Amino acid sequence: MMLTKELEDILGKENVSTRMSELYCYSFDASGVEGLPDFVVRPATTEQVADVVKLADMSNTPVVARGAGSGLCGGAVPVEGGIVLDMCSMDHILDIDIDNLQITVEPGVVHEKLNKALEPYGFFFPPDPGSTAMCTIGGLMANNGSGIRCVKYGTTRNYVLDLEVVMADGRIVHTGSKTLKTASGYDLTDLMVGSEGTLGIITKAVLKVHPLPHARSVILASFDNTTLAGKAVVKVLSSGIIPSACEILDSTAIKAVRSFDPSVELSDVGAILMIEVDGMENAVREEAALVGKACEELASAIKVAESGAESENLWKARRLVGAAISKIDVKRTRIYVGEDIGVPIKELPGMLEYVRSLSEEFDIHIMTYGHIGDGNLHTGMAIDMLSEEELETAHAVADRIYRRAISVGGTVSAEHGVGKARAMYMELEHPTSLEIMRQIKKTLDPKGILNPGKMGL
Amino acid sequence: MMLTKELEDILGKENVSTRMSELYCYSFDASGVEGLPDFVVRPATTEQVADVVKLADMSNTPVVARGAGSGLCGGAVPVEGGIVLDMCSMDHILDIDIDNLQITVEPGVVHEKLNKALEPYGFFFPPDPGSTAMCTIGGLMANNGSGIRCVKYGTTRNYVLDLEVVMADGRIVHTGSKTLKTASGYDLTDLMVGSEGTLGIITKAVLKVHPLPHARSVILASFDNTTLAGKAVVKVLSSGIIPSACEILDSTAIKAVRSFDPSVELSDVGAILMIEVDGMENAVREEAALVGKACEELASAIKVAESGAESENLWKARRLVGAAISKIDVKRTRIYVGEDIGVPIKELPGMLEYVRSLSEEFDIHIMTYGHIGDGNLHTGMAIDMLSEEELETAHAVADRIYRRAISVGGTVSAEHGVGKARAMYMELEHPTSLEIMRQIKKTLDPKGILNPGKMGL
Repeated sequence: MMLTKELEDILGKENVSTRMSELYCYSFDASGVEGLPDFVVRPATTEQVADVVKLADMSNTPVVARGAGSGLCGGAVPVEGGIVLDMCSMDHILDIDIDNLQITVEPGVVHEKLNKALEPYGFFFPPDPGSTAMCTIGGLMANNGSGIRCVKYGTTRNYVLDLEVVMADGRIVHTGSKTLKTASGYDLTDLMVGSEGTLGIITKAVLKVHPLPHARSVILASFDNTTLAGKAVVKVLSSGIIPSACEILDSTAIKAVRSFDPSVELSDVGAILMIEVDGMENAVREEAALVGKACEELASAIKVAESGAESENLWKARRLVGAAISKIDVKRTRIYVGEDIGVPIKELPGMLEYVRSLSEEFDIHIMTYGHIGDGNLHTGMAIDMLSEEELETAHAVADRIYRRAISVGGTVSAEHGVGKARAMYMELEHPTSLEIMRQIKKTLDPKGILNPGKMGL
Repeated sequence: MMLTKELEDILGKENVSTRMSELYCYSFDASGVEGLPDFVVRPATTEQVADVVKLADMSNTPVVARGAGSGLCGGAVPVEGGIVLDMCSMDHILDIDIDNLQITVEPGVVHEKLNKALEPYGFFFPPDPGSTAMCTIGGLMANNGSGIRCVKYGTTRNYVLDLEVVMADGRIVHTGSKTLKTASGYDLTDLMVGSEGTLGIITKAVLKVHPLPHARSVILASFDNTTLAGKAVVKVLSSGIIPSACEILDSTAIKAVRSFDPSVELSDVGAILMIEVDGMENAVREEAALVGKACEELASAIKVAESGAESENLWKARRLVGAAISKIDVKRTRIYVGEDIGVPIKELPGMLEYVRSLSEEFDIHIMTYGHIGDGNLHTGMAIDMLSEEELETAHAVADRIYRRAISVGGTVSAEHGVGKARAMYMELEHPTSLEIMRQIKKTLDPKGILNPGKMGL
C-alpha cells in the first residue's frame, strides 16, 4: 500500500503491520460487525498519533482508534478500511495526584490496572464495566461506559476532567481543565466522551477519583418473576436510597449460572435482584435494612450478606453470567445483538415482561440481566451460529427490543455504544438532534476520516 | 423599530416592550456589563420562542435569553442590542416523576421553588447557588451553576438528562433522553449546558433529582490564616471523606458578617471552614468526627454543630457574606469582578496567600469566601464606586487573579460563567480548544444571532 513507508517513518518499521494475519485480528469484535484495516499501527506518543492523523488527512484515509477490542457494537472495527491505531502501547498511568483527587492516564491503560494502582491510596475510579480485566480507559471514554456502580456513581463521563485529543487535521487540543468544576467555555470534554473516535483521538485523560467506601453490603432479593423485581427497583429508588449497585438476573440467567458453577448459592427462582449499598459501616447496615423493607412486599425471600466474603461471592455469581449462557443450551452461543437498552425506571416492569413475551413468541433463549438500577437491561440471546434462520430471528427480536425501548423514552445503548451495530436506529432515537450531531461531525472532521460508518452520522 | 409588529403578532401586544424605561431594566446585571435591548419579549410557549428566533434569523437580529438577571458576568446582557427573551413566564414545573427520579421543568422556574416542590417527596435538586431565592433553572443551566453542595453532588450539568432547545434557525430539538444513562449519540445536552445561550435557547428540561439525606451536620473549624485553612481542605479531601459542602470565609469575610449581624456566633479568627457532611444519621456522626480529626493539627478550634438548628445558623452566617461586605467600609461597595476562579485543590493554599498579598499590594479590600472544597474561590472586592481610580485598581487586581488561576491549571469561572466580563481570557485559558468552540458556534449559529459578543467566540 501507498502509505506504508510514511507510516514506518513516523512509527518505526516494527510498529506498522500490513500482514493479513495481523490485520485480521483487528477486523472484528463480538458484535458481528466486520471490516479489514489496511494498516495497523502502534503509536507510543501523542505526536505519533498526530502525525498519523495528518497523513490520513492528506491521503483521505480512514483512521480508527482501538483499545482492547472488547467493544460490542463494532465501534473499533474499521468498516471502511484504512488505519487502525492500536492504542495499547500508550498504557501509562502518568500521575496519581490524590491531593487533587485526580489522575492522569494514557488511553491504553486497562481498567483493572487503574483501580489496582489506586487501591493503596484508598481511592478508586468508580465506573466498573464487566470487561474490567481487559477493556481500556480509552474505550471506556469513547463509549461512555459505566457498569454496575453507575446507579450511585454515574458514568465515565462524570469522571473526565480534561482530555488531550488529536483532531481530524492533526491538531492537538486540550478540552477541559484540572479543576473539579468549571463554567468556562463549551463542554468539549463531554462532547468527546461517547463520540466513539468520530471527532478526535483521545491521547491523554485527567480523571477524577473517589474515596473507596469504608464498607459495602449486598442484599439478595428473590422474586417469582421479573415484573415483580422491576417493581421492587422502582420502590427502592423512590424510597430515597441510592444503592451503589442494583443488578437483575432473570430465571434464564440464574439457571445458566447455577449450571455453570454449582457451588454458587443462588435459588432457582423467577428473578433475583442484587442490591449493594456502600458507605460508613453503620450507615451500610441501616441502608441495607431499608432496602430490605422496600422489597419486602414484592420479594419471596430477602437475604443480606453477613460478611464481605459473602458479598464477594454474590458478585462472583453475577460476573459469571456472560460466560454462563453457553450452559443453557450447549448447541447455542451467546450473541451480542440488541443487548444494551436503557429505559426510564418506571418502564422496567413492562420492558421485562415484553422481553419475556418475545422469548416465547420467537422461541429463542433470552437471558436478561444488567444494571436495572439505572434502567439498563442486557438481553442476551443464544443461537445456533450455523443457522442463518436463527441469526435472522435474533435480529428480528433485537429490532423489536430496540423499537420498544425508544418508544418508551429509552435508548438503544445505555453503555456499550452505537458503533455500526446500532447506527441504523439513530434516526429513530434522535429524530431532531441527529442532524445537529452530523453538523458537528462535518465541521470537526470535514473529510470524514475519523471512524467513518459509525453512529449514523 | 421594524420588528415590533411581527413580534406582537407572535406574542401579543402585551408581551412586547419597546419603552426605554422597560428596556433599561434588561440592560445590565451585577457585573458592570451593559447593553440596551431593542425589544423585550415574554414568551409563554416553545413555539413562541421558535417563532421569535425565526424572525431574528430572517432579520439578522441578536437574541438573548434572560432568566432572573442575577448573573455576574453579563451573560444575559444584550451587548449588541436586539431581542431579549424574558423567560420568566415559562415557569411551570411540568412533571414531578419520583418513580423515574426525574422532573420536567420550564426554564423560568426559580431554583428555590423547585426544591420546595420536591421536599414533600423527600427529594431535592442538589445544585444550590447562593441566588436560590431568585435565580432560574434556565440561568443555572446556561452557566452550569452549582453552589455549596457541588463538592459531593456535582454541578448542574450532572443533573440534566434532556433539553428541549430552540436552535438558531428556529428548529426545536431534543438533546437527550429520559433514561438515567445513555451511550447513544453525541452528548448535546452537556454541550448546551454552560453554553450561555450562544448555541440555542433552552425551553424545557428533564432533570434528575436525588433523595434528601436523612441527616446533615456542620463542622466549624477556625484557623490562624487562610493558608492553613487551604491545607486543611487538601487534608480532608485526600483522607477519603467527601463532604456535602466545604466553605471558607477569610478574616475580612468573618469581620463583615460579624458587623452585619452581631448575633452570628463566629469568632474573629484568620479563617473559618464550614464543612458539612450528610447521609444516614450514624454515618454523619462518624464522618463529622473524621473531618475534625483531619483538621486537628491545623485548626485553632473545631466545633461540631450539635443540632440541625445550630447547623442552620452557621449556614445563615455563610449566606450573609455577599451582603455583609458593605459593612467593612461604608463608603465602599462590593463589585463582581474577578470573583469566581477555580483552581486545583492543591493550589488552594498558594492561591489564598496570593490573593492576600494582592490585597496588601494594591491596598484594596478583598473578602475571600466560597466553595473551597471544589477549588472555587469568590474573591469579593469593595471599592468606592465614584472613584475611577479604584475601579481601575480592581480590574488590575482581577487581571492578576485570573492570570494566576489559569497559570496553575485553573479557570476564570468555576460557576458564574464567562459572559462578556471574562470573554477576553478565553484565549489564554483555552489556547487550543477555543478554536473548536468557535467552529461549533459557527456551524450551529452561522449568522451569530444567539447572544453575540459573549464567551470570546
